[in-house]
Amino acid sequence: MYKNIYSALYDESSTKDFIYSLHSRERELLFKEMQKCEEKRLKSEGQGPVQPPTSEQLRFLAFHNALPFFGFGFLDNLIMIAFGEYIDMTLGMRLGISTMAAAGFGNLISDVAGIGLASYVERLSMKFGVRTPEMSPEQIDMPKTRWIASIARAFGVAFGCFIGMFPLLLFKDEDEKCEDKT
Amino acid sequence: MYKNIYSALYDESSTKDFIYSLHSRERELLFKEMQKCEEKRLKSEGQGPVQPPTSEQLRFLAFHNALPFFGFGFLDNLIMIAFGEYIDMTLGMRLGISTMAAAGFGNLISDVAGIGLASYVERLSMKFGVRTPEMSPEQIDMPKTRWIASIARAFGVAFGCFIGMFPLLLFKDEDEKCEDKT
Repeated sequence: MYKNIYSALYDESSTKDFIYSLHSRERELLFKEMQKCEEKRLKSEGQGPVQPPTSEQLRFLAFHNALPFFGFGFLDNLIMIAFGEYIDMTLGMRLGISTMAAAGFGNLISDVAGIGLASYVERLSMKFGVRTPEMSPEQIDMPKTRWIASIARAFGVAFGCFIGMFPLLLFKDEDEKCEDKT
Repeated sequence: MYKNIYSALYDESSTKDFIYSLHSRERELLFKEMQKCEEKRLKSEGQGPVQPPTSEQLRFLAFHNALPFFGFGFLDNLIMIAFGEYIDMTLGMRLGISTMAAAGFGNLISDVAGIGLASYVERLSMKFGVRTPEMSPEQIDMPKTRWIASIARAFGVAFGCFIGMFPLLLFKDEDEKCEDKT
């Protein structure tokens, strides 16, 4: 599950919590960029109706949103399955816990690891990823833009999870294990 | 894995990406609170060395950080295991995929669901959770404070994942399934 940066700011108190969670350097950066954004917004006010984003801009936006989530999904399932299989073959055999319980413990390890790994995934995907296309704050606020970003994230994480299942190809399947036991 | 709000701001471009990802209402809130924070910081400058946070403040901080991550871990493992078991008992039996593969698909569903659910978990834990204790930006920036927040998040998610494994008690264990098959 993802700590959603788009949901942390809904009242004064939560916004203050968010600001205080930032490092001083991050706060400075954010304050400077917000001032720029505010100036831009004030300048564009009263310039007539806003053009909706082009389909090329939306394609870029979708890719930009999907890429880090692909990375999160990939690592999440990869770590879960690798540790899950390991726990299943060691503790599982010895203590008699089920394969699904081993997967649950694998998921626990994957989630804890995710707290540290998330920042690396974001930086990496920023490096390789397509930048947000130049869109105005008004274009970004359009429901269509929001929807495409959300759907791209969902597809990204689903595809990442799917590809992250490749370690399964390296292990014997359950039926063989059952046959071994009998 | 968690989209880390503390990692999204490391250069001008990523900060701009972040600001543009916010809704207009969120941007307004953030800009207002940042101005307040900046005023506070300027006022406290030159008032001598900063006191480190008290142990009571750190306890509050730990609880405040652990609670939403407990929620994420709990839901993540709960959804993964519930869907994993369901897939294992339906598709798994029919297509012959292993229990670990079923868990992988369960995790895929859990991760996609997490994109939508994360905001509800945060709001809920804000409602029940202890607010960030009144700390100055300088106190928040201390390495000790950062470490305690990170460790609290890791413990929160691990404990949440563990408690989220309770559906396993409702299912037959693997050995019984193997016996059924033979």
